[in-house]
Amino acid sequence: LKYIGLLGFGTVGSGVYEILNNRSEELALALGEPVAVKKILVMPADLERKKAEGFDVSLLTTRFEDILEDPDIDVIVEVTGAFEDGLRYMRSSLEKGIPVVTANKSVVSAHMESLLTLAKEKETPFLYEAAVGGAIPILKPLKEEILLNRIDEIEGILNGTANYILTRMFEEGLDYDKVLKKAQELGYAEFDPTDDVEGFDSMRKLRILATLAFRGAVSEDDVIVSGISSITQADIDYIKSENAVVKLLGRAVRTGDTYTAVVEPIIVDRSDSFASVSMALNSIAIRGDHVGELRFYGEGAGKLPTADAILRDVIDILLGAARWRNDIGDEKLSNANDTQTGRYYLRVTTDAETLEAIRARSADFAVAPYWELTKDGSLIVVFGEAKRSDVYALVGEIELKREDFFIARVGYR
Amino acid sequence: LKYIGLLGFGTVGSGVYEILNNRSEELALALGEPVAVKKILVMPADLERKKAEGFDVSLLTTRFEDILEDPDIDVIVEVTGAFEDGLRYMRSSLEKGIPVVTANKSVVSAHMESLLTLAKEKETPFLYEAAVGGAIPILKPLKEEILLNRIDEIEGILNGTANYILTRMFEEGLDYDKVLKKAQELGYAEFDPTDDVEGFDSMRKLRILATLAFRGAVSEDDVIVSGISSITQADIDYIKSENAVVKLLGRAVRTGDTYTAVVEPIIVDRSDSFASVSMALNSIAIRGDHVGELRFYGEGAGKLPTADAILRDVIDILLGAARWRNDIGDEKLSNANDTQTGRYYLRVTTDAETLEAIRARSADFAVAPYWELTKDGSLIVVFGEAKRSDVYALVGEIELKREDFFIARVGYR
Repeated sequence: LKYIGLLGFGTVGSGVYEILNNRSEELALALGEPVAVKKILVMPADLERKKAEGFDVSLLTTRFEDILEDPDIDVIVEVTGAFEDGLRYMRSSLEKGIPVVTANKSVVSAHMESLLTLAKEKETPFLYEAAVGGAIPILKPLKEEILLNRIDEIEGILNGTANYILTRMFEEGLDYDKVLKKAQELGYAEFDPTDDVEGFDSMRKLRILATLAFRGAVSEDDVIVSGISSITQADIDYIKSENAVVKLLGRAVRTGDTYTAVVEPIIVDRSDSFASVSMALNSIAIRGDHVGELRFYGEGAGKLPTADAILRDVIDILLGAARWRNDIGDEKLSNANDTQTGRYYLRVTTDAETLEAIRARSADFAVAPYWELTKDGSLIVVFGEAKRSDVYALVGEIELKREDFFIARVGYR
Repeated sequence: LKYIGLLGFGTVGSGVYEILNNRSEELALALGEPVAVKKILVMPADLERKKAEGFDVSLLTTRFEDILEDPDIDVIVEVTGAFEDGLRYMRSSLEKGIPVVTANKSVVSAHMESLLTLAKEKETPFLYEAAVGGAIPILKPLKEEILLNRIDEIEGILNGTANYILTRMFEEGLDYDKVLKKAQELGYAEFDPTDDVEGFDSMRKLRILATLAFRGAVSEDDVIVSGISSITQADIDYIKSENAVVKLLGRAVRTGDTYTAVVEPIIVDRSDSFASVSMALNSIAIRGDHVGELRFYGEGAGKLPTADAILRDVIDILLGAARWRNDIGDEKLSNANDTQTGRYYLRVTTDAETLEAIRARSADFAVAPYWELTKDGSLIVVFGEAKRSDVYALVGEIELKREDFFIARVGYR
């Protein structure tokens, strides 16, 4: 019998428990023996609630040590969602030589180098497939391809909440606030949606992907981030008129010994592969010198899809097939985000005088921009090939309020 | 040192050799020791050619036994492309307990059950990722998901040649024969393109995918096949006018204890995920009850992409991480292809009398079809929900020549 220690019994934790029950026969057959949850770490309040629901309380504990010190436990699954506690649980488990599987993207993003170093030191598997792209098998294929390829590009729709909001604004003409509220009601968006809509969640996932793909640490600070919270129907109207859609994309590109890593809204043609990725789905593409372009697509979050990804890691550990020893390479790359250029879209909604000032300054760009005044009196500027930092500098000098403008890159190749 | 015995030194075999050379350092680091090709089986004529090219002939042999009997060889990579010989080489290797990796889709499709039984009997890995979807990591993720999900649907653009022809006919308005000739010049299509354009290659891949996904044998005979060789610009014009594209799709669906498995041209909306899969690319989607929909996309063929897929299998074997024991399940499913229904598009180009006969007969369908006469005098019939077999029966009764009509399904959900 193989045993799992489950840390956290919220949405994802319950999903892990449910799939293990649904698939017990198939798993026993494949593993040569049954696998079950031995103990579940819950908050004191949840203990009472679960008791009231008639759940077998002998499985539950409020003390992490009950799991850490249980000699029967073969794998610890960390799905608390907590930052400090999550990190502490993972460190303690690895220290003790107990393999860890986590979906905790914040902790992995902040500490993947030290956790992987500890894992190697202790010869103890540490896997985190569910931390990026939800159900999509991306980290495992990526770890396989880095052995056989030089990966120079990785990009994706990495946040389901932002993509859900953009899709509904686009397809139903709804306002940002209205769609955000619906997303919160449906449980797609948090009460504080900042991480999702301002791109920080995508940034963490891109940092993890780029670190694996480029074989050298790309930290959170190495990623430029801009989000979608200021997008309006004026933007959507313009983008629609160009037969395009807008997606929040994370994108990291290596050129020689330098790389760029940016999360930003990107306006893509309707025929682009990312254009058909709608609602809460995620999609990730990688490009290697031998394998060419590989593209993956699936549920970016959710109880059972995330639990499925976690259990793939658990099975790999139980079968002795886990790969974690070579996650971090020793490439020394320098960040070239400052040099990033592209075509950029800017919409500003403010008083006429300020608009005129923006128009005047944008005329100084090397490539003459395109201007348009919308029905509601906003100014749209589409810059030809320009430095990203110059576009943002222009907005910064004018001291616009965050809600008064929206910037998106136009195309990405 | 780990050694590979390479059977075949054509396009894919050379790719395997090339990647092993390009990535020797990274592979040695990951595997803990270097991996190299020990011996290559070539045809006598190639031996002379390679000698003339200055290739190290001590690596080459024309006798399979030199590889089979070499005690240093850890994995045999079969990329001969030959049917009888390929099968014989694989059987002999497994019999002797030497792990086998193959890209030979014809042999895997015809014999996967017996090869996997032999592999299990001999406790010897047998992997064939490169046989389906070229570079796309699909069989390994599928083998992982079948443990955690009931998979009820699998579908894909499985043949790069057919997709290349359809893409260029569509985008450049070229005729079928002209594009086929270009595809042959570029090496995408064989001298005899029947397998690719008539759907038999897709059928083999669908048979392999469905057998894995449904956990019970779906044989080649269980798949209905129709191809694209009779498509004309009259078809393309109509499909374009519907804001759609046409793709040769393989699709297998399970409902309860029955399933359907069909390879046929399908007209899909431009917003469909398959619509953006162009030229020689492949794309495969699976749907599981826990993981939801997963979609994969990449190069469907080619020297280095295929070699990359082969080497992923080789690495799994050398790391002891290969999965092949549970490829075939014991589900007893019955084939329900006869009951398959859908909307169907039919274009017929023939004499006016025959067209009138078709029009009359098609009027007898339960749902009244849509009729249209094209500029060149062809008849287009779009059937509402109808049995697939009824549509083909109508064409069969009229005894039309294969080149005089084109049938495609309209949509697939």
